Amino acid sequence: MDIREALYTTRAMRRVKPDPVPEEVQARILDAAVRAPSGGNAQGWRFMLVDDKEQIAKVAALYSECIDMLWATVYKDQVDHANSSDDAVARKFRKMMNSVTWAQENFDKYPLLLFAFDQFDTTGGSIFPAVWSAMLQARADGVGSSLTSVLMFKNDETLDVLGVPKEEGWRMSACVPFGYPEGKWGVAPRRPAHEVSYRNTWGTPVGFEIDEPLWP
Amino acid sequence: MDIREALYTTRAMRRVKPDPVPEEVQARILDAAVRAPSGGNAQGWRFMLVDDKEQIAKVAALYSECIDMLWATVYKDQVDHANSSDDAVARKFRKMMNSVTWAQENFDKYPLLLFAFDQFDTTGGSIFPAVWSAMLQARADGVGSSLTSVLMFKNDETLDVLGVPKEEGWRMSACVPFGYPEGKWGVAPRRPAHEVSYRNTWGTPVGFEIDEPLWP
Repeated sequence: MDIREALYTTRAMRRVKPDPVPEEVQARILDAAVRAPSGGNAQGWRFMLVDDKEQIAKVAALYSECIDMLWATVYKDQVDHANSSDDAVARKFRKMMNSVTWAQENFDKYPLLLFAFDQFDTTGGSIFPAVWSAMLQARADGVGSSLTSVLMFKNDETLDVLGVPKEEGWRMSACVPFGYPEGKWGVAPRRPAHEVSYRNTWGTPVGFEIDEPLWP
Repeated sequence: MDIREALYTTRAMRRVKPDPVPEEVQARILDAAVRAPSGGNAQGWRFMLVDDKEQIAKVAALYSECIDMLWATVYKDQVDHANSSDDAVARKFRKMMNSVTWAQENFDKYPLLLFAFDQFDTTGGSIFPAVWSAMLQARADGVGSSLTSVLMFKNDETLDVLGVPKEEGWRMSACVPFGYPEGKWGVAPRRPAHEVSYRNTWGTPVGFEIDEPLWP
């Protein structure tokens, strides 16, 4: 697969089938992940694949609680707006909520989870390139994924389920459920790059406009 | 370019030529960046391309101070070890130091910098996939890059140079210098995936071994 197709079509794919992800695909996912850069090339990371049904069920229960907490805290205003309005913002948010609610109700059927852990990465810059490489490599094999940090709401409980030695400073950076998509791949709509980009100083236009995605 | 070639050969490329990066390549870099996922698809990011020589010189001066601070703090023990030993760890660290010192001495000659900013991203998970996508897209166009968060040591000064409205909560996540490589692309050596990966619980072997990179 062309790099550009992967970069443009690896969107959050929460609705996936319960079919297992073959071991050779899992190996390619992890091997791609460790090729990513990390600060000082320290590679201060650990990865965990979870495909045991009982383990996934335990994580699913925690994920469900965390999503309820997410709506009630970080996204409270947006949820209230989405439930009481029908403008573009409300519709976009309801669409995202529906997708997340699907994940909440079906989390125990995900065939494979990837957890990423870091030890001393204060910015995330030494772990999320690896996580994103894992997701892009999965895409190349037709496997969908979505990245969530929501389990942070139940951080200690999640680390306990996975047996993570917190006393050594290992922290959970992300959980990525994988699976073969129910739906189709496509380019996700985004605010155009020139609307969120500047040149040389804040507020100065970047100098070009990109009205349509530059791929395909 | 195949996705796998990009994932395996986009290594930290600090030694680059001063030749400018064409505008169409810059546009592809930014357009790829905004396709990345972000929490709740909030896209709470801003990007800044810096190609003005005076601005780059100001950042270069700050970068140089930050690198000195990095060796004297975070990496003090490793620097001491690298300067007093000749084992594999010391040699690997000296190689990385040489590369960073090249960047320190030549930063003002980089033709293009990308800064990424986020507003409410506590984990980095909503900005570093976009930064890494930018670097992978650049790779597809033959442009090298390296990711640094070291300017955090002079965070306020850097934000002031770039005119970032700190009062609105915008934070610098990363600085990525771009340019056409002096050297060759290649697969960076890494600790094998199975040595840093577990299955289902911490410490349980992942179930396969990957002794050689799975690409090419």
